[in-house]
Amino acid sequence: MSLEHFMQNAISEWMRVKGPQSDIVFSSRVRIARNLAGLPFPMLSTQSQAEEVVRRVEEAWKKERLAVLKDAELIRMSDLTDLEKRVLVEKHLISPMLAEESRNGAVLLSQDESVSIMINEEDHVRIQVLFPGLQLEKAWKLASQIDDWLESHLTYAFESDYGYLTSCPTNVGTGIRASVMVHLPALAMTQQLNRLIPAITQVGLAVRGIYGEGSEALGQLYQVSNQVTLGQSEEEILDNLQGVVRQMIEHEQIARRRLQEMSLTQLEDRVHRSYGTLAHARIIDSNEAMKRLSDVRLGIDMGLIVGVSANVMNELMVMTQPGFLQQYAGKRLNAEQRDIRRARLIRERLAMEQTNDQQTE
Amino acid sequence: MSLEHFMQNAISEWMRVKGPQSDIVFSSRVRIARNLAGLPFPMLSTQSQAEEVVRRVEEAWKKERLAVLKDAELIRMSDLTDLEKRVLVEKHLISPMLAEESRNGAVLLSQDESVSIMINEEDHVRIQVLFPGLQLEKAWKLASQIDDWLESHLTYAFESDYGYLTSCPTNVGTGIRASVMVHLPALAMTQQLNRLIPAITQVGLAVRGIYGEGSEALGQLYQVSNQVTLGQSEEEILDNLQGVVRQMIEHEQIARRRLQEMSLTQLEDRVHRSYGTLAHARIIDSNEAMKRLSDVRLGIDMGLIVGVSANVMNELMVMTQPGFLQQYAGKRLNAEQRDIRRARLIRERLAMEQTNDQQTE
Repeated sequence: MSLEHFMQNAISEWMRVKGPQSDIVFSSRVRIARNLAGLPFPMLSTQSQAEEVVRRVEEAWKKERLAVLKDAELIRMSDLTDLEKRVLVEKHLISPMLAEESRNGAVLLSQDESVSIMINEEDHVRIQVLFPGLQLEKAWKLASQIDDWLESHLTYAFESDYGYLTSCPTNVGTGIRASVMVHLPALAMTQQLNRLIPAITQVGLAVRGIYGEGSEALGQLYQVSNQVTLGQSEEEILDNLQGVVRQMIEHEQIARRRLQEMSLTQLEDRVHRSYGTLAHARIIDSNEAMKRLSDVRLGIDMGLIVGVSANVMNELMVMTQPGFLQQYAGKRLNAEQRDIRRARLIRERLAMEQTNDQQTE
Repeated sequence: MSLEHFMQNAISEWMRVKGPQSDIVFSSRVRIARNLAGLPFPMLSTQSQAEEVVRRVEEAWKKERLAVLKDAELIRMSDLTDLEKRVLVEKHLISPMLAEESRNGAVLLSQDESVSIMINEEDHVRIQVLFPGLQLEKAWKLASQIDDWLESHLTYAFESDYGYLTSCPTNVGTGIRASVMVHLPALAMTQQLNRLIPAITQVGLAVRGIYGEGSEALGQLYQVSNQVTLGQSEEEILDNLQGVVRQMIEHEQIARRRLQEMSLTQLEDRVHRSYGTLAHARIIDSNEAMKRLSDVRLGIDMGLIVGVSANVMNELMVMTQPGFLQQYAGKRLNAEQRDIRRARLIRERLAMEQTNDQQTE
């Protein structure tokens, strides 16, 4: 399979579009956790009860198809290979838990992959909307619309004292979790993140790596999300997160300007060396790839590297994950083989960009 | 001044030609030390005595011009700027001592820069012949021919017990020093040099960095030369050196083949990463540049990098020295400025090569 062809299938449609503030905010996500009344939570459900949940969601979807879910696909985890599941995880379309631990897990995935409804994850239903750039309100609006549509066909577990009931108490109430993926290389380079992250945590937000709880902050990418779901309205939750993200953007912009003023040549050297390494290495591990991609992305966003589109870096950050590499190779690969394939994929992808660096000097 | 134009003037003609074994032996040099009878050695000579030496050599040269010295130029150190002297040192055409410490120092330089006769260096006359690749015998033949020609016009200081007299006792006797510049990256990578160098020293040869005694072995380039000048004939000296160099070539070739068999991808990764760094860095110090140029040169010689000519690396090893950089810039530069200029010069030079790396994959 050619890389071009693979990419057309591999990269989510929504990832190709540039969103607002996309030089710093890669994506916005809103997730709503819901459970069906009268059926035990997934952790306690039997095989047939879990199947019943899938059946009910499918029925609702077949009864009345929302525009956004018109060409959606219902995918059962049991129909996927381990590799296929892994790729969906790497694209943030399903959680590792749904891929590995669910009983009768399934996902209803919209054509452009901006909407995914996980079934039988930690909760019966998890509605997720993913948009490029900073578009929390728009994502929330769509998630909420899907939520209303589902509720018109199914009965949710709800208590007037608590709100929506969820498996994990941290989700009770609104059941909403909003998160934003931000790229903060200049704050990292200038050692300001160590001060910033604790401050963010204090206002009830969490800062994590891109693959969720416990994952490392690879490539200076951070996921900022709300911790509190109870006692705040959806609007308050979104406003709080949005306000903090706007401040982070501003801090990052100031840090970038300062770097440009104080050590432009050092910065140029760093981003171009990273480009040179990505364009020529024959072996590259995931950690180094993410670091270099982050550098190059910063170089593009600051106008220091031209002729390479910023999106290429986002694509490569996803495509060089182990699952993708193995899917592209069409077989299982060990770590060393992946490092070689990763280097090749990056070289091929950069070569696809029309202009090369020499023309861009 | 364009880089192309600068290079045409900067690089010695002999450097553009490929010599025998030039994938490992960069150059061969023979140097003959002679002194004129009846005049004190340079260290003890007065200004006017030193001037007398220059006058006598010039007179001989004007009386009968050897073909190789027909379009030669007599250059007095006092007519050169510090920067110009430095460039001649970096091209190995004069010694640091002649540039910095000589009294009435001068050099008679052939058009193609393969012959340089230093006047008033440590000895009155030092005839030097430099050829590309392994051509010790040819270099010796020419040096000897020049020596005979000079002797037919001048009276040398000579004692039948010792041979030719020289300022430093290590040169007494034949007054000949032969040296070969070898590139031994594979032996260095496989940690074999630590064993090899002491063995070479034991057979009366010296191993040094490329800028002579005390200089570091930058870029895995080594100068191997005879230590003994007394009690051996010129032929024995050359045979001994040549024999050892041939063994070094063989060891290096075996080490390269072994690297290719045992860790080809690692080797490819290393040489291509070095190429990527050279082609994209914005700041590069001399040490790193030499190391990366050595890697790329190895890659070219082993056929792992194509589309870049091997000579480019030799040129760049010379052109990125501090003197050259400043001459190209047309002004004095501090270390930081040199690192920036060095990176630019390398990028420009590599871009001049028709093919780029992407076409060579």
